[in-house]
Amino acid sequence: MTDPVLVEVTRGGMVESRHRGAVAVCDADGKLVLAIGEIEMPVFPRSAVKAIQALPLVESGAADALGFDDRELALACASHSGEPEHAELARGMLGKVSLDNAALECGAHWPSDQDAMVTLARDGRNPLALHNNCSGKHAGFICTCCHAQVDPRGYIRPDHWLQENVRVAMEEVTGAPHGEANRGTDGCSIPTYAVPLSRLAHGFARMATGRGLGVERAKAARRLLAACMAHPFYTSGSGRMDTRLMQAAPGRIFVKTGAEGVYCAALPELGLGIALKCDDGAGRAAEVAVATVLAKLLSGDAALAERLRQLASPTLSNWNGIEVGSLRPSDVLM
Amino acid sequence: MTDPVLVEVTRGGMVESRHRGAVAVCDADGKLVLAIGEIEMPVFPRSAVKAIQALPLVESGAADALGFDDRELALACASHSGEPEHAELARGMLGKVSLDNAALECGAHWPSDQDAMVTLARDGRNPLALHNNCSGKHAGFICTCCHAQVDPRGYIRPDHWLQENVRVAMEEVTGAPHGEANRGTDGCSIPTYAVPLSRLAHGFARMATGRGLGVERAKAARRLLAACMAHPFYTSGSGRMDTRLMQAAPGRIFVKTGAEGVYCAALPELGLGIALKCDDGAGRAAEVAVATVLAKLLSGDAALAERLRQLASPTLSNWNGIEVGSLRPSDVLM
Repeated sequence: MTDPVLVEVTRGGMVESRHRGAVAVCDADGKLVLAIGEIEMPVFPRSAVKAIQALPLVESGAADALGFDDRELALACASHSGEPEHAELARGMLGKVSLDNAALECGAHWPSDQDAMVTLARDGRNPLALHNNCSGKHAGFICTCCHAQVDPRGYIRPDHWLQENVRVAMEEVTGAPHGEANRGTDGCSIPTYAVPLSRLAHGFARMATGRGLGVERAKAARRLLAACMAHPFYTSGSGRMDTRLMQAAPGRIFVKTGAEGVYCAALPELGLGIALKCDDGAGRAAEVAVATVLAKLLSGDAALAERLRQLASPTLSNWNGIEVGSLRPSDVLM
Repeated sequence: MTDPVLVEVTRGGMVESRHRGAVAVCDADGKLVLAIGEIEMPVFPRSAVKAIQALPLVESGAADALGFDDRELALACASHSGEPEHAELARGMLGKVSLDNAALECGAHWPSDQDAMVTLARDGRNPLALHNNCSGKHAGFICTCCHAQVDPRGYIRPDHWLQENVRVAMEEVTGAPHGEANRGTDGCSIPTYAVPLSRLAHGFARMATGRGLGVERAKAARRLLAACMAHPFYTSGSGRMDTRLMQAAPGRIFVKTGAEGVYCAALPELGLGIALKCDDGAGRAAEVAVATVLAKLLSGDAALAERLRQLASPTLSNWNGIEVGSLRPSDVLM
């Protein structure tokens, strides 16, 4: 089966490039509400499942014991842009267990936010692991270990106590097996497990509704999604699609991007979970696709749907600021 | 017709993402030697045709009158990384017609080379149009105008004398119509015209052999390709695929990347031209595809073919330098 074209890139009135992909929308009972393309083939969700990976931080009591507020929970679920506020908040999380940048095992990279990168360079500084887009998640992992009096060193390894806890949470929420056979290593060195989009969509419907998760997990899941929706900047960064989508309807839309063209999302008011992947791994197309699917599902709110459709049709400008083309959803998504 | 998968991205032993596309290889008579996917659909070649766009610079006598050497001709065909040597050489080209950065109409952007960007920021400087990856091409355009005593201002406009000359050269070399109907605007603000891959491949076979171009144009074409092959760094930049491919067989392989997953290439010894595009616009996949096609066509030189196959299978490492996956050509390309 060949996935359909989800997103087209235009230039001068012609289609220049095309992105194929698959989309699953599920309710909390696992019933498919929308299915486009090959949704039963396992895909690596990458960073799109960080909110599920953060469940042990809350369920263990670590977050409360350390006095984490919603901003810190949002950062624990984040792929942030490495802006000063992100790095400082991650530093503060580690400080609460008397650790610092050196405890992070995610590696360092320049901030994805260009202004943040230029500022860092202008100051004569080099990027730290704190600037890694995953530093909040890793800080959360380390805090979970410290609260449980487990040595955090090596927390990125699949056989570490922490990753075992994360793996079990992932397995229980998605209902899909997570083992050596479907394991890869993520950009920040933790394991990532390939799971069908249908299972990821079901998992996020459960996260949004609590259905089938048990009382404590349901509470933790809702708290994490609420934290991200309350502080989109801390799960993403300035001007980014995740930030803009969640700001478009505060408390009503949860979205999280993952590398290689993945999005997971949830609509608590409809009890739905969404998971999609562009076959070619293109983030630009995944953004258009998720915004379009959200507009479709939220069509009952005409003003919001219109705002989401606008976000789904960004214009492309060149270095002189001249509009040269656009991204647009294909008919399959409408 | 759905283009086949040309390149796969693996992670943990599984295929994570897939890139589809089309490839045309032609001889100078226009005979197809290899055809994969939809090669008669017009695609914007973007920067992959800069060597053709530089023909007027040489044919008009401007290059000789201004004393341009091969490095300057290579830069006139370049999508460079904005490294100091690139910006300085473009500045020197403009200096020969008593103009400077202010004459460039390409817009400014930070160098794509991370070290060059960080150095610029550390020095407290902002990027100039000279750092734009197209500054060499634009400097060549401006010099062509000045030599012909044509006012260069507005040289990026489709109706400017310079762009008319470029358009005619493109039309004659590729044999494909270039008009308003198939015109878009490129990242650097000049027109780009959508042309089938088969025509682009034929055009580059002509550029490499001179066949069907007339004496003066044939000489100019060979001189431009030779200049790029002699100075790959000046058509590309440190560590980049174009540089590495041309360095792998000095004087035998010409390649030029274009935005949105395009490559044009030529093999003078075989009299062949190559043009390919990844449907989704992914540069990483276009790199793998062009290296694989070159290896296939040059299989008579076992050591070179092996080197090219290595370049076609880059490993993917994460922020800790751990190998997490790879890019690889699909069976269709082998």
